[in-house]
Amino acid sequence: MSEDYIENLVKNARKAANVLQHMKPEDKTICLPILRDKLQSDKSNILLANRQDKENAEKLVQSGNLSPSLFKRLDLEDGDKFDSMLQGITDIDNLPDPTGKITYACRLDEGLELYRVTCPVGVLLVIFEARPEVAVNITALALKSGNAAILKGGTECRLSLAALYSSIRSALAETNIPPTAIQLVETREEISALLSKDKYIDLVIPRGSNSLVKHIQGNTRIPVLGHADGLCSVYVDKDADLQKAVRVVVDSKINYPAACNAAETLLINRSILSTHFSTIANALAQAKVKLHCDAEALSSLSDQENPFFKPCEETDFDTEFLDLRIAVKTVGSVEEAIVHINEHGSKHTDAIITENEDTARSFMQGVDAAGVYWNASTRFADGFRYGFGAEVGVSTNKTHARGPVGLEGLVIYKYQLYGNGHIVSEFGESDQKKKYLHQKIQH
Amino acid sequence: MSEDYIENLVKNARKAANVLQHMKPEDKTICLPILRDKLQSDKSNILLANRQDKENAEKLVQSGNLSPSLFKRLDLEDGDKFDSMLQGITDIDNLPDPTGKITYACRLDEGLELYRVTCPVGVLLVIFEARPEVAVNITALALKSGNAAILKGGTECRLSLAALYSSIRSALAETNIPPTAIQLVETREEISALLSKDKYIDLVIPRGSNSLVKHIQGNTRIPVLGHADGLCSVYVDKDADLQKAVRVVVDSKINYPAACNAAETLLINRSILSTHFSTIANALAQAKVKLHCDAEALSSLSDQENPFFKPCEETDFDTEFLDLRIAVKTVGSVEEAIVHINEHGSKHTDAIITENEDTARSFMQGVDAAGVYWNASTRFADGFRYGFGAEVGVSTNKTHARGPVGLEGLVIYKYQLYGNGHIVSEFGESDQKKKYLHQKIQH
Repeated sequence: MSEDYIENLVKNARKAANVLQHMKPEDKTICLPILRDKLQSDKSNILLANRQDKENAEKLVQSGNLSPSLFKRLDLEDGDKFDSMLQGITDIDNLPDPTGKITYACRLDEGLELYRVTCPVGVLLVIFEARPEVAVNITALALKSGNAAILKGGTECRLSLAALYSSIRSALAETNIPPTAIQLVETREEISALLSKDKYIDLVIPRGSNSLVKHIQGNTRIPVLGHADGLCSVYVDKDADLQKAVRVVVDSKINYPAACNAAETLLINRSILSTHFSTIANALAQAKVKLHCDAEALSSLSDQENPFFKPCEETDFDTEFLDLRIAVKTVGSVEEAIVHINEHGSKHTDAIITENEDTARSFMQGVDAAGVYWNASTRFADGFRYGFGAEVGVSTNKTHARGPVGLEGLVIYKYQLYGNGHIVSEFGESDQKKKYLHQKIQH
Repeated sequence: MSEDYIENLVKNARKAANVLQHMKPEDKTICLPILRDKLQSDKSNILLANRQDKENAEKLVQSGNLSPSLFKRLDLEDGDKFDSMLQGITDIDNLPDPTGKITYACRLDEGLELYRVTCPVGVLLVIFEARPEVAVNITALALKSGNAAILKGGTECRLSLAALYSSIRSALAETNIPPTAIQLVETREEISALLSKDKYIDLVIPRGSNSLVKHIQGNTRIPVLGHADGLCSVYVDKDADLQKAVRVVVDSKINYPAACNAAETLLINRSILSTHFSTIANALAQAKVKLHCDAEALSSLSDQENPFFKPCEETDFDTEFLDLRIAVKTVGSVEEAIVHINEHGSKHTDAIITENEDTARSFMQGVDAAGVYWNASTRFADGFRYGFGAEVGVSTNKTHARGPVGLEGLVIYKYQLYGNGHIVSEFGESDQKKKYLHQKIQH
């Protein structure tokens, strides 16, 4: 693939984005039911391609070059995955249009009105691994929000993606949307070329492993929406209700240990080590969770022979285990918990268990994270659970979009100023000059 | 300056930011009137330092190592600049607090409530040239929005900055705000070290020349808020009112040619070359503006001897002149104007002059820029004129904040979830499981 090929590809994406800016919402979203129908009628072809991908991948799993969990994600026939993929299109179609919303309106002068209106970001580059249905999901999200998208999936689902993309292309062909609104690129070499095209690509969305995301963040000037780490903590305060603590700690850890919103660190207040900790520790051990405890927490446990209790290492508090292990640290106060989380956490989601409202508020103010929870499991950090309908990803960024990101993360705004020949030189401090009105306009 | 020095500096900024997250708005903004008083009482010292800077800078101007316009910006005694600086603090103090605003509220389950609440971004790095009063302006903006800031000014105003910073420090010392909430760094070598501290710095705001901004954008993984280029265009449509066209084109060009929101390109519809263009061109020429015209526009002018009319070069349409020159191109339609602007513009601010509403809407939809104006001068693109009270800068980014940025650009949000021991494993599709309520909460 030559540099020219990539240059053309991104220019065509930009052109498509410029056309999409113009189009009425209904002219864009008309594609979504058509896409659903195409995928439905192309189902057998798509599953055939998927089976070939799986056959190839199986060899990689056997030779140890692909993890079994990645293999499972590849499978479009797994459970109701295909139907969920179709339903996802309809769900996104049913969401309100995120563009064209007025978020600020001000009369600057008689006949001079300023409106801030949401609009598409422009061109998205979405880089993902394994799960081929992401191509369909992103296509629906991009068209709903009026963005063009360049899709780069993993080589392990190459044939599935080609089949899905064929349906996407024929759906686009039945509309007035430019065919290059959604483009698929296939080889890994193209990624670095694409990441250098900051003139044409407005936002990169990586969906995949920590190493994939880190690599992308470190190799582009284009804004990256996403998260590399999900190092979430639960702090059990001295005023915690024991039953709530057990429920929330266990759910945060074991509900889906491989998820970015699973808890990796348990902070426990010193004054409840003797009263609360052994119950929590035993509940975790019963759920097959290994506790890597600091000396104080470990020595407080009566059952020193329990194979699930072991001493921690300092690195445990900077480790995203993603499995049935949790690091346990004793702290003296909520302030100490906040300092630990702000230093070691990944600004994703952190919870406090306490019955004391002041302590909870202090934690929720002081912890610098996308999600700060009081007496609730960290596992709630998810766009569907938040009520967004569809999720672009989870962001630990401090700008643009933070936490679970819905369609809102794919829009920005522009200022529209409506005048009647107004010029700046007529405004000023002196008596002869006009003054700005700055009247809010109801919208 | 050692690497350790920078590491300590950014860690202290982060610690201060974490403290600011906790503080009540009034405990942060109490510093602003104190700062104003300090600057007032330290005025003679500050102006003394400023005079020394000017003496040193004068030599640089004479030897051709500093531009006269930068020299002028250095001068704190110029006009009412000192008093404006003080008034700016009061103006910012009077703005509404941008933090603590609820922007989304949803009941996920009985007793499980989700709130999205605005909060400070964290640590700002502000890099600026020449104008020493930016240090005071940014200090006020940062404290108002609850952010810590690291300030790096130009060496040409080193002594002025040291004097201003001394007042800032003594104002901070009279409050509970950590003294490292606002820090000043002095040497150019520190910039590259600071730009690598993406773990501690959340946002970089460069205020200065195109080359400064470009250098920063190309050398950091931290989000950069700002703009390198301001290549604004005015398109005079076939349905333009001639008088409005003359007013807006002239104002957009000459009101302040060195500003980023001044017009650099004039696009003119072919069908009005004979009726409108010569009047516009003569008005510009009378204002001493040189017109770099394409062949068609140039040949349409009857006064071929006018020294202000000359042929353009292709590069003129990618040039930010920042002086009394403007590039002129003939286009056949609004669509062609849009294509030209999206290809050559800098996504800053572009205007159309037309009496045709459909054409105007098409332009405002199709042009991908922070500001799209109908019958109004591009020079309105400014935070004060927009009614924001204070301006952080103007952004041509496609994410986070776009256009003139007020205090809103210095905040992000966090999701606060209030539960009562709620866990995810109790929710699900099956009949026995709870369902999400997703009820909007009025806020």
